[in-house]
Amino acid sequence: MSFAANFLSDNAAAPCPEVLVALSAAAPAQNAGYDADSWSRRLDALFTGLLGRECMVLPVSTGTAANALALACLVPPWGAVACHDEAHIHVDECGAPEFYTGGAKLLLCPGDHGKLTPASLDAGLASHRGDVHQVQLSALSITQATECGTVYTPAEIAALTAHAAARGWRVHMDGARFANAVAALNCDPSALMPGVDALSFGCIKNGGLSAEALVLFDLALADQLRWRRKRAGQMPSKGRFNAAQIIAMVEDGVWLRNARAANAGAQALAAAAKDRLLHPVEANEVFVQLAPGEPERLRSAGFHFYDWGAAGSNEARLVVSWDTPPAHVEALARALAAA
Amino acid sequence: MSFAANFLSDNAAAPCPEVLVALSAAAPAQNAGYDADSWSRRLDALFTGLLGRECMVLPVSTGTAANALALACLVPPWGAVACHDEAHIHVDECGAPEFYTGGAKLLLCPGDHGKLTPASLDAGLASHRGDVHQVQLSALSITQATECGTVYTPAEIAALTAHAAARGWRVHMDGARFANAVAALNCDPSALMPGVDALSFGCIKNGGLSAEALVLFDLALADQLRWRRKRAGQMPSKGRFNAAQIIAMVEDGVWLRNARAANAGAQALAAAAKDRLLHPVEANEVFVQLAPGEPERLRSAGFHFYDWGAAGSNEARLVVSWDTPPAHVEALARALAAA
Amino acid sequence: MSFAANFLSDNAAAPCPEVLVALSAAAPAQNAGYDADSWSRRLDALFTGLLGRECMVLPVSTGTAANALALACLVPPWGAVACHDEAHIHVDECGAPEFYTGGAKLLLCPGDHGKLTPASLDAGLASHRGDVHQVQLSALSITQATECGTVYTPAEIAALTAHAAARGWRVHMDGARFANAVAALNCDPSALMPGVDALSFGCIKNGGLSAEALVLFDLALADQLRWRRKRAGQMPSKGRFNAAQIIAMVEDGVWLRNARAANAGAQALAAAAKDRLLHPVEANEVFVQLAPGEPERLRSAGFHFYDWGAAGSNEARLVVSWDTPPAHVEALARALAAA
Amino acid sequence: MSFAANFLSDNAAAPCPEVLVALSAAAPAQNAGYDADSWSRRLDALFTGLLGRECMVLPVSTGTAANALALACLVPPWGAVACHDEAHIHVDECGAPEFYTGGAKLLLCPGDHGKLTPASLDAGLASHRGDVHQVQLSALSITQATECGTVYTPAEIAALTAHAAARGWRVHMDGARFANAVAALNCDPSALMPGVDALSFGCIKNGGLSAEALVLFDLALADQLRWRRKRAGQMPSKGRFNAAQIIAMVEDGVWLRNARAANAGAQALAAAAKDRLLHPVEANEVFVQLAPGEPERLRSAGFHFYDWGAAGSNEARLVVSWDTPPAHVEALARALAAA
Repeated sequence: MSFAANFLSDNAAAPCPEVLVALSAAAPAQNAGYDADSWSRRLDALFTGLLGRECMVLPVSTGTAANALALACLVPPWGAVACHDEAHIHVDECGAPEFYTGGAKLLLCPGDHGKLTPASLDAGLASHRGDVHQVQLSALSITQATECGTVYTPAEIAALTAHAAARGWRVHMDGARFANAVAALNCDPSALMPGVDALSFGCIKNGGLSAEALVLFDLALADQLRWRRKRAGQMPSKGRFNAAQIIAMVEDGVWLRNARAANAGAQALAAAAKDRLLHPVEANEVFVQLAPGEPERLRSAGFHFYDWGAAGSNEARLVVSWDTPPAHVEALARALAAA
Repeated sequence: MSFAANFLSDNAAAPCPEVLVALSAAAPAQNAGYDADSWSRRLDALFTGLLGRECMVLPVSTGTAANALALACLVPPWGAVACHDEAHIHVDECGAPEFYTGGAKLLLCPGDHGKLTPASLDAGLASHRGDVHQVQLSALSITQATECGTVYTPAEIAALTAHAAARGWRVHMDGARFANAVAALNCDPSALMPGVDALSFGCIKNGGLSAEALVLFDLALADQLRWRRKRAGQMPSKGRFNAAQIIAMVEDGVWLRNARAANAGAQALAAAAKDRLLHPVEANEVFVQLAPGEPERLRSAGFHFYDWGAAGSNEARLVVSWDTPPAHVEALARALAAA
Repeated sequence: MSFAANFLSDNAAAPCPEVLVALSAAAPAQNAGYDADSWSRRLDALFTGLLGRECMVLPVSTGTAANALALACLVPPWGAVACHDEAHIHVDECGAPEFYTGGAKLLLCPGDHGKLTPASLDAGLASHRGDVHQVQLSALSITQATECGTVYTPAEIAALTAHAAARGWRVHMDGARFANAVAALNCDPSALMPGVDALSFGCIKNGGLSAEALVLFDLALADQLRWRRKRAGQMPSKGRFNAAQIIAMVEDGVWLRNARAANAGAQALAAAAKDRLLHPVEANEVFVQLAPGEPERLRSAGFHFYDWGAAGSNEARLVVSWDTPPAHVEALARALAAA
Repeated sequence: MSFAANFLSDNAAAPCPEVLVALSAAAPAQNAGYDADSWSRRLDALFTGLLGRECMVLPVSTGTAANALALACLVPPWGAVACHDEAHIHVDECGAPEFYTGGAKLLLCPGDHGKLTPASLDAGLASHRGDVHQVQLSALSITQATECGTVYTPAEIAALTAHAAARGWRVHMDGARFANAVAALNCDPSALMPGVDALSFGCIKNGGLSAEALVLFDLALADQLRWRRKRAGQMPSKGRFNAAQIIAMVEDGVWLRNARAANAGAQALAAAAKDRLLHPVEANEVFVQLAPGEPERLRSAGFHFYDWGAAGSNEARLVVSWDTPPAHVEALARALAAA
């Protein structure tokens, strides 16, 4: 069998051993259904400790569900969410935010390397008047780490949440790769939370199996979230298996261990392609300008990845997962350096 | 520790060993994301063989999601679904069908022991005119096994689907306990499928962990279902773990083995309470008229179950799961017989 | 041309002269668009005086829009509205409440002669638990005058609104024939308003042309209503013509004059059929048990009306409008008395 | 009273005499409710003749309702509509398209002077992939005349509809100022209709009172449109008054007479400001670059208009209505020429 190395997506990664052990440990006996089991009931306290703010945590089955449910709690149907024009909620969720919110709009803002700033928000929203003929700006959605593999510093987050607060907007953070961001910043996760109302805390890309954690800091919305989740078909009947996965990821630092491994692989690739990076490499994604013919050569050598950017641009996205074999990273780094 | 026996819900049941083995077997290596893995790609053929009709199968995370997605594909926003007045889609899904369909209505029909008949549909819909001022009847939803623990025979299903076809309605089957129905009828599952457009094939209550199978027979709706599922946040990024669970349940007859075990327990309880059953016991649920004081006595003896019916009616629902210990069943049967 | 008398619907009635004069008076000059004109700006004060409570009034184009917008402001998507099982919002609006609310449910309650009582609400909702698996009861909708041509007294309204308040429900009143109710009660309209959060104040059936008044007493919902109305396409660009119609109806008592005329006609019919009325005749609708063959005889004599009830029941609905010629009423009364 | 001339919006215009006469003519007698009257039943044939294609016509109460209903018929909830980034459906309808469609998205494309071209569509949609993770492009919406006061020629429309047809998209035309476009082109309106599936035929800005005509060419969608309109609260109970207005506008060429008057006024203003026009003046709107201080001077001279573009840009929009007094136009033209 020929060599094959997968840099397509962290969705291809395996669940990590701790998650599998936790599932087996939760399995044997009968237990209470829905969220009434002992695992589910531990989540709020666990994340309150982890994130440094009182919160409610409900598992959901996908990152799209986490994002869309969060936005539905934060934004009315006549509302609008300011987000980056490459944000996953706009580009890759088949309209889930619009479905869950009852038809709210996403208003797209520019930003270098996937990052919003107060100035880029002002630029993107300059023509928005906000009178009764228009949707009402109600929330800001930030992606941490971003779609371009960059990371907001705590100060950058604080500037954005202050900008939002001054306008009465709520703040959602899409943290599909939140672990990679925290690992990259090497900070306490609580440093990224002030001013955030809801966090989609990603587990699946980072070694989880089938559960993401939706973290809500505005507890006045807790009941609303429970009802919305139920009617979205996102309240699992055997909730203990979702909660157990999440606990296994968060306790004992597994989430950061996994994220550090993925980030380290991305750094190795970045070093090998340092003159032709399209974005700073700060998390586990590498965006690189390949040469004409190079995509084909890399693929025929067994490296799998997505083309990026416009057709024919020879841009590539390389994603390193927690379990990408170091030998695969090294092989790709060599191939990139040789080009 | 005192004796405790759980007859509250089959949601309390453990996942069965085959499911856990399948998860572990699917875990080690990286694999394609979403539904592109080798497990997910086997589902269509597996169910086509099982159910005797060409179909498409997509895993979702809950039975509510399966039901609501199915109805959204079958019914327009201005449509109506005829269903039993005790149907789960009406009583226990917090409006998920209304959410997913964009506001279609459920029109409630009576029926003894949880079962609809052509005549009970006529009775329930007698005042519905169907002009432009009203929602348009577009589908029938049948629950198999029913909310009352009874089972439709193939002939009864055929009579209902013929009634629907004559009126241009689509047919959805809520099969949260489809396995129990098939085990009870001891028939080929294909005998229950003619005229059905979509089936929520339940796994979780019957020994699954976190995935239900949504089966669509009308392949003209296949793309619509894929898009609706994605935007509902029900397309898992590591879909192989959902598919693997479902395959483990269906291959080698595990689903029927589990259902037979649960049904047998229900029969034992029914025999012990045969003079005071509220509904025929045909699947894994027993509805029984207790005597005044008996609910308290049973609970103090360690038996857990839900009260049913009106407050103070002393009606009880007893659910047997695939893994309910026979000793628990026997103990409850003795207690019931002694009353 | 043969004799023809229309008792089908008050929607067939002409607009009254005062409404036509008001439209002509508003027409000649340019004026501010949307709701910024001088007619629209008078509505709040006019209705605050009329109804004895501070309120906001926005014209909409149909009674269905008034009802659905009101409910959308009062009930969340996961909410439920308790209403009579013959309520227009359930039977005759093609799912508009479900559409506008984002999928809330109507929970149907019985009630003699179209009227709800606290006891009939309890009966209709007896099996509703209200846990997270169910929609959340959030509002009560009362129809005044009812679909059966009866009228709630102020005391009956007070009992219902107290029942709702004790449960945290909001209260909506569908007043498509509110004028007929007030005329029948011969009371100040303010006597019917305590505890009501939103009123669909009907004009069109009662001599209006194309505008209904949506009255909102909970001013905390004012902005929400404005945005919902705009995005529903219910904010007219030349709002002055809707406002002017409504003002013409309300000022100088035209609305009550018209309603009294219609009610008087209904009383005349009721007197002629007093032994076979299906409901007390209190507003402008008469429900009568005809004899076999009588529907055909009446129709061949030129009287137009709708059959009611089950097919073959020989029940009829006779609606008198503000402009039904007294001679038509007298002719029908004679025909009924003669049967 | 000081001089005041209104160039704010054609929504400020009065209804034209023919419309008022038609309302009075329709008023006196009782007639069938809803759309069953003789006026409503004439609309299909009238527009089929006018537009040269078989069509169904239903009056609605606003242009926003016409647009949103049309899009809801053409685009599924998971769909997307390609439109100009200044389109009214995106900028000025408070999310009505998203509400009516159940959460479809508008994908924004650039275009000089408010006009889309096949190339500008390609540019705006270049990054859209269309896989299952994304909304599905399903329709194109064109505004004729555009938001910038320009007009598509029949050839330009044909190029766009061919582009759409090649991709399987449906085509909607927002014709809030369709009359102005036809008057400007001096063509038969049928020349603009090939390839169009639904047209929002504007009346209100052009001398109507309270009704717009929604024209549907794809008759397979006719029932869907009727049901959607009813559940949107857009089916008027006395429909004859909406239909009569529209007939009065279209018969005898009133719509074109009115539009020509407005266009002529715009041409007079354009001639006076010909060196500083922001867009070609082709319909009844003039976008002009004013000098610093000029907005204030014009306003103090009694001219009312909206600022346009970015704050401080001194751009202005001047709208001429069918009934703008020529003396007002001349006065403004003089003032502009003098600057």
